[in-house]
Amino acid sequence: MKVGIVGIGLIGGSFAVDLRKEYEDVLLVGYDTSPENLDQAFELGLIDKKGEVSDWELLDLVIVSVPVNAMLNVLPNVLDQISNDCLVMDAGSTKRPICEVVADHPKRRNFLACHPIAGTEFSGPQAAHQGLYDGKTMIICEVEKTAFKLQERGMDLIKRVGMRVRYMHPKAHDKHIAYVSHLSHISSFMLGKTVIDKEENERDIFDLAGSGFESTVRLAKSSPDMWTPIFEQNKDNVLETLTEYISNLQDFKNKMEEGDFKSVYEQMVNTNRIKEILKGIPLTKTTK
Amino acid sequence: MKVGIVGIGLIGGSFAVDLRKEYEDVLLVGYDTSPENLDQAFELGLIDKKGEVSDWELLDLVIVSVPVNAMLNVLPNVLDQISNDCLVMDAGSTKRPICEVVADHPKRRNFLACHPIAGTEFSGPQAAHQGLYDGKTMIICEVEKTAFKLQERGMDLIKRVGMRVRYMHPKAHDKHIAYVSHLSHISSFMLGKTVIDKEENERDIFDLAGSGFESTVRLAKSSPDMWTPIFEQNKDNVLETLTEYISNLQDFKNKMEEGDFKSVYEQMVNTNRIKEILKGIPLTKTTK
Repeated sequence: MKVGIVGIGLIGGSFAVDLRKEYEDVLLVGYDTSPENLDQAFELGLIDKKGEVSDWELLDLVIVSVPVNAMLNVLPNVLDQISNDCLVMDAGSTKRPICEVVADHPKRRNFLACHPIAGTEFSGPQAAHQGLYDGKTMIICEVEKTAFKLQERGMDLIKRVGMRVRYMHPKAHDKHIAYVSHLSHISSFMLGKTVIDKEENERDIFDLAGSGFESTVRLAKSSPDMWTPIFEQNKDNVLETLTEYISNLQDFKNKMEEGDFKSVYEQMVNTNRIKEILKGIPLTKTTK
Repeated sequence: MKVGIVGIGLIGGSFAVDLRKEYEDVLLVGYDTSPENLDQAFELGLIDKKGEVSDWELLDLVIVSVPVNAMLNVLPNVLDQISNDCLVMDAGSTKRPICEVVADHPKRRNFLACHPIAGTEFSGPQAAHQGLYDGKTMIICEVEKTAFKLQERGMDLIKRVGMRVRYMHPKAHDKHIAYVSHLSHISSFMLGKTVIDKEENERDIFDLAGSGFESTVRLAKSSPDMWTPIFEQNKDNVLETLTEYISNLQDFKNKMEEGDFKSVYEQMVNTNRIKEILKGIPLTKTTK
């Protein structure tokens, strides 16, 4: 199988690693706007060759894993280049704008709109590793718009890397992911900012911070290049979550100011329910 | 050595486990207001006997690990009961009120004010385990107010369980810990509340949530019985952090509303610096 990886970072690179492991005789062709990334991906053995224009029509599968703003240009271009028999999958953290931009593309049936719920706070080819997707969920949107034979090829890859599938409408995906992912990233970034701004002596942060602090600001190490376009594309939904979150924090603050610790206690008891909900979520491997 | 553990939960229980491992011939005497906790601690082998009044004067070391509101009553009572040669250490997440309540106690020199920067989101005797403190930091306040010989006994225990020591003024401790721990817990609880309130179909949370979400709401599993008293005792400092945090979130929201994603990007780049700061913090063991 000949596979193109467009954007060889954590996401694309980790697919490359798994593809090599799962498929015999796979040729991995890499495309990236950054020559350094391309070089590094090649040196790390993530790809077998740096892609040329002439390679496109030979590919059986393309994974497009670029920031979601770039995706709006790159995806239609990729669809222009590939053969009729090639499956193109994306990995965008937003789905509606991406689905919309290719809605009327002549090769729409070659595209499977995907969002792998997997990642770490690290970026770039050096972050790519085996098993990133194992036990994780793949969200697929508008599956009926993908040619059946190509759906099968996609499902095969998805199963082989160990993922389960959930189908969602793009609009619903973007609405819910704002609460369950995008807001978490903003809360982490702003928590990190709050602490960095106040704790002028960084030794204090280092000494007093335990794993609790670390887990709430872990996402503040995420790539602004990846996340700014996501917030921008999913702006309305993200703003809704921010409004709710700020309102809840303000309410908590008011209760504390009034000395109403009974309510403070009750709110926390009610939120403890998250324990049950989270029981099924696969935890990230502990990374140093 | 005869050791009293007052409050045999995650914190006290884990000290008990380490004490048994590190000291030969240690007798562990447990005190707890909850008969169920006491029973369970005994069954789990965390303690050798349930403490009686007559045991106090025989103890060489007492660890008091109860919620910080209870601490204000329990700690002076423990100091009343122990012999002149006994060291009492606490584990309170706030320090100023606790230090104040025993400032004029006749046995002040028997007390070493401690805050072990260690924990998980789990509670109770069943959560106790070996190695919770290994590689972690012990904050000690007002060390000069503890008798020198007893300081040494405390340092010995602290080293044996694998901790490093940092000395702080109680007021400074409470101010900084508000930013580097207490705020994280509130952010987690409110994030959890925001998502639970909005995501009526919990299946959506489960399906869409990845490790990023999990790490930002992990602390929302924490014990309200432990954390409400902490927020109440450290109210002024915690309110200050909340004000800052809400202000930063509001600012981020405004920038998004105005479409100023250049500023959004820059803020995130500046916060990426947390990577370097966090490099030294020992991560929690991955728990399922």
